[in-house]
Amino acid sequence: MSDADLKDDLPGEAEDIAVVDAPESESLDEDNRLKPEFVRSVKEALHEEDSDRVYDLVEPLHPADIADLFELVDERERLTLARSIRDLMGVEVIAEMNDWVREALMEALPADVVAEIAGELDTDDAVAMLEDLDEEDQQAVLAEMEPEDRAAIESALSYPDESAGRMMSRDHVAVPETMTVGDLIDYLREHRELPTEFWEVFCVDPMHRPVGTCALSWILRCPRNIPLYDVMARDQTLIPADMDQEEVALRFQKYALISAAVVDKSGRLIGQITVDDIVHIIQEEAGEDALLLSGAGDGDINEPIRDAYSARVRWLIANLLTATLASSVIAMFEDTISRMVALATLMPIVAGLGGNAGTQTLAVTVRALATNQLTASNAWRAVRRELSIALLNGCTVAVVIGIAVSLIFGNVILGLVIALAMMTNILIAGMAGVFVPLTLERLKADPAIASSIFVTMTTDSMGFLVFLGLATVSGLVG
Amino acid sequence: MSDADLKDDLPGEAEDIAVVDAPESESLDEDNRLKPEFVRSVKEALHEEDSDRVYDLVEPLHPADIADLFELVDERERLTLARSIRDLMGVEVIAEMNDWVREALMEALPADVVAEIAGELDTDDAVAMLEDLDEEDQQAVLAEMEPEDRAAIESALSYPDESAGRMMSRDHVAVPETMTVGDLIDYLREHRELPTEFWEVFCVDPMHRPVGTCALSWILRCPRNIPLYDVMARDQTLIPADMDQEEVALRFQKYALISAAVVDKSGRLIGQITVDDIVHIIQEEAGEDALLLSGAGDGDINEPIRDAYSARVRWLIANLLTATLASSVIAMFEDTISRMVALATLMPIVAGLGGNAGTQTLAVTVRALATNQLTASNAWRAVRRELSIALLNGCTVAVVIGIAVSLIFGNVILGLVIALAMMTNILIAGMAGVFVPLTLERLKADPAIASSIFVTMTTDSMGFLVFLGLATVSGLVG
Repeated sequence: MSDADLKDDLPGEAEDIAVVDAPESESLDEDNRLKPEFVRSVKEALHEEDSDRVYDLVEPLHPADIADLFELVDERERLTLARSIRDLMGVEVIAEMNDWVREALMEALPADVVAEIAGELDTDDAVAMLEDLDEEDQQAVLAEMEPEDRAAIESALSYPDESAGRMMSRDHVAVPETMTVGDLIDYLREHRELPTEFWEVFCVDPMHRPVGTCALSWILRCPRNIPLYDVMARDQTLIPADMDQEEVALRFQKYALISAAVVDKSGRLIGQITVDDIVHIIQEEAGEDALLLSGAGDGDINEPIRDAYSARVRWLIANLLTATLASSVIAMFEDTISRMVALATLMPIVAGLGGNAGTQTLAVTVRALATNQLTASNAWRAVRRELSIALLNGCTVAVVIGIAVSLIFGNVILGLVIALAMMTNILIAGMAGVFVPLTLERLKADPAIASSIFVTMTTDSMGFLVFLGLATVSGLVG
Repeated sequence: MSDADLKDDLPGEAEDIAVVDAPESESLDEDNRLKPEFVRSVKEALHEEDSDRVYDLVEPLHPADIADLFELVDERERLTLARSIRDLMGVEVIAEMNDWVREALMEALPADVVAEIAGELDTDDAVAMLEDLDEEDQQAVLAEMEPEDRAAIESALSYPDESAGRMMSRDHVAVPETMTVGDLIDYLREHRELPTEFWEVFCVDPMHRPVGTCALSWILRCPRNIPLYDVMARDQTLIPADMDQEEVALRFQKYALISAAVVDKSGRLIGQITVDDIVHIIQEEAGEDALLLSGAGDGDINEPIRDAYSARVRWLIANLLTATLASSVIAMFEDTISRMVALATLMPIVAGLGGNAGTQTLAVTVRALATNQLTASNAWRAVRRELSIALLNGCTVAVVIGIAVSLIFGNVILGLVIALAMMTNILIAGMAGVFVPLTLERLKADPAIASSIFVTMTTDSMGFLVFLGLATVSGLVG
């Protein structure tokens, strides 16, 4: 290969990372988000159908910012935007785009255009783009693609949803361990079809099974005559192709990996996963807890309204059923309440504070389970810890509310009743907050999904039961 | 440097990545967590003070698993464990350890031992270890350290908490852009003091300001005679040393970075941040939302009980105050309730469902704000979207509860009252769930911290007010 040939292919020419440090940037604010004024100019240009002005505005942006721009403009403006900046709609823009926005855009574009874009993407990005399409649209796009690309994508789609096989890139560098550093460098220089972006070289045996991994920095620091089996790390993290992406993300994090080999059932190297694909997953999986605990489904602001409605209303109906249970507890004490209406005023405090305390314990427990910090080995310690905290919280809140109610209502017995009820309910909340998710985890269910319904059902019902029950038996009401 | 010399320094000999794919592993379960049986054997050996057996058990583990083991054994067993496996307590174990566990362990160890460990760590890990210690302990440790290490750590500690300056590593490779690929490779081979683990080489001008970045794969694929200015990417993401770690993490994610140059105020390159340090932060920051929304503070199961108590009880007391407000709303309607006690039975349903709906909207909005998906440009769209969903949810739930109450209580007016109240409260919840965090964000406050108190205060009070108010004015009660 001549130098002139190579020059065209050099990353310095072909690829640019972001200019992010320019404080005088016209389009980005100090938090590196697109400025509202900038977005407004683009929208104005879109309304005036002034494609040239749209292009001039968007052209200086980094692909990740172009992807953000698609999310920020209105839904009906997105197709016009895509048409105005056709040749800027590169691989990185599509790959960086929010899933919902991309899906809607892909559905609006003709199959041959989508096929053309998918053909230019890395397999993992193409799969991410196509897996959300309807079966029919997917087939239409695949039919338009080059046979080789189609085979790669169909093979990736054969792995389960959210598995390593779906997210891996097939591009990787694999060489025999007997190669020397010098031979490897020559091989890399001579073979243009090899990927440009990689962080580790995998050594494989004749069956193409990984036997070791060389970080590029180790290779660069060694003399040419050293064989790779003296450079490589033999122990390595191999990712089975059917491993769930959450598990893959935990391994990358635990072992501080930059890239890892993906192997099929027979142990053959079939691709690699790099950390830049993992950070999105770590973010998603970690951020998901807050959404799942609140029953907000996928919780993406770009999700179609009908999908969000369907996820959320199911949760509300489930909560309605559990609220009915709490209601029926109150109904048992209608006689007590009618004799002392102040009880109706105070009972939501007992139930509500219990709910808050339960949610705190629940959030901590779910988080610890999700990060593998809480296992069978330390489960009892966690339970003891949560009960200790609940005891301390319960005492404090009980004292405060007991004194306040005694003084305000001029009724010490009422103060004692609410203090005792509060204490009991916060303890119950602590227990529910730790046992419910632990039990769901043991039953192989996701503790983030259903825990909070059970916990608030418990704290509501028990709060009313204990408070109204104590009020009845204490002789507080004639 | 002779080959024999170099051989000792080779990563293949010195460092091993993890063996994770062995299904027959004696210590790890299928989710890659330490097995309870294994942890139990270690604990037994610790109780029997059988250091040799402890050592034999722990020796085959990966450093990340040793770090996990410290979290899984009881607090009082940790010092004995550390003493039994003294020479296995390497850099990676300390760096991978949970902050709270490490802090407690460091406080229990003598200052000179801590100083010795800190001296062996990379600056960023040493800083992470020392920054949590008391001022006094910190000074004692620093006094025991080598002057050079001390200066590096003191300089890092001079940057704000959770800033890029604290987390960066000073080790990096920086060369002039006029160097050729061949000269760079020779320079890397000849200088043993250079770091072994790096993913990019930074090109700098004579003032040591970064002018470009070369990924190692680009260098390996270029002929020796090509100068670096033809290889490097000129546009690059520079991280100011005082940038907050959350912002750093967002940039790594947005631009899919592997490493990035950290610069001081004058633009000089002073260190680098690599993505393996970022994944922890992304996890922490993304997972934090669920904890903050529930008022569970840091929410780490290794946090001392007194700290967890202090964080959580403050939240409960704040909620107690807002619950009092809701209570006083009920108190205004005591007369109404005494005439129809069924209202007391039903009112928690209206308030509670409103709370659930508000929390859903809140979780979605907080998440979108944290990931920079929601900005001033699309805020109104998000508001309209949430109100549409609230309208749909409100109608559905109102119809269900209206019919159910009409039938169960044989009272159509009561059914209409609760349906209308539910509809109104879910709409109010939707508004509060989106406006409260948007307002807090605009006031530069963290929307995850205080939002949920305001939202549930609104949904509770308004739920009671609307339901009991409607019941009063509708003529439902004589």
